[in-house]
Amino acid sequence: MKNLRKFIPLAIATVVVACHNSPLNTPDKDKSASLPTDSEHVFARGEKVNNPNFTGGAVWLNNLVNADSLNQNAVGVVTFEAGARTKWHTHPAGQIILAVDGEGYYQEEGKEKVVVKKGEVMKCPADVPHWHGASAHSHFVQIAITGREKGETVWLEEVNDEVYTK
Amino acid sequence: MKNLRKFIPLAIATVVVACHNSPLNTPDKDKSASLPTDSEHVFARGEKVNNPNFTGGAVWLNNLVNADSLNQNAVGVVTFEAGARTKWHTHPAGQIILAVDGEGYYQEEGKEKVVVKKGEVMKCPADVPHWHGASAHSHFVQIAITGREKGETVWLEEVNDEVYTK
Repeated sequence: MKNLRKFIPLAIATVVVACHNSPLNTPDKDKSASLPTDSEHVFARGEKVNNPNFTGGAVWLNNLVNADSLNQNAVGVVTFEAGARTKWHTHPAGQIILAVDGEGYYQEEGKEKVVVKKGEVMKCPADVPHWHGASAHSHFVQIAITGREKGETVWLEEVNDEVYTK
Repeated sequence: MKNLRKFIPLAIATVVVACHNSPLNTPDKDKSASLPTDSEHVFARGEKVNNPNFTGGAVWLNNLVNADSLNQNAVGVVTFEAGARTKWHTHPAGQIILAVDGEGYYQEEGKEKVVVKKGEVMKCPADVPHWHGASAHSHFVQIAITGREKGETVWLEEVNDEVYTK
């Protein structure tokens, strides 16, 4: 029985460790490494955005629906890595933002920046300058519903770090 | 060592079992019991719908966004249990459906019924009679984006089982 008491805790500890996923002990230098994988989301992350209307980090876009003669709304999934943000901009027919993962920031001109969490919904009024993006410490995934019946998004100046972190 | 060999497999088996969630061995008589819980979804299931425009099973609605002066679109999450469906209906400004969980059916008048899976997107043209709902063997969760600028949904006749199962 003495041998038994000595070995059972070791056997239990071995199996408990085996029950957990082994964390890969790699330094997280790439912020996008902390993004959820496509399999964790209903919609794929889409293509990396390569244009100057987004700054501060990487952004991905999956255009789910383009506006056409059947429907004037465009619907897209936008994934911002931590720190990434849009430029200030306006939508001639407004926009609805559904926050589907992570934590973001949203600010309208003349108002305080607000923190937007997964499960929350924002409505951007038509022609009001605003910006949105990921918070400084979390990725942010949004479904954006944008009416195209009055024209395209109007892009304005960059959101600098002073505004972003305020 | 003889004692040790006898007890270690038992200790390991005990811990392996403890690592898994214990399934509750209850019969699944209630179809809604197989619906995902709110914690598995970004948006809550909302209130049970109690009106004759939905038949064949239980339906839940979470109105995320109401149409107003800022935006003419309404956005809602609709959860259909297996077998539940809308009546035939039309939208004066069309509708976009994002399938976010389970498997559904969608049919426009004069066309074949199509199976809609999680991650797929449908566009219902304005004024075209159609119906949608869960498939016969799976719940279905959709985000519906409905323009209200040309009026409300027009409800038509019920989708009978012959049409539904065809």
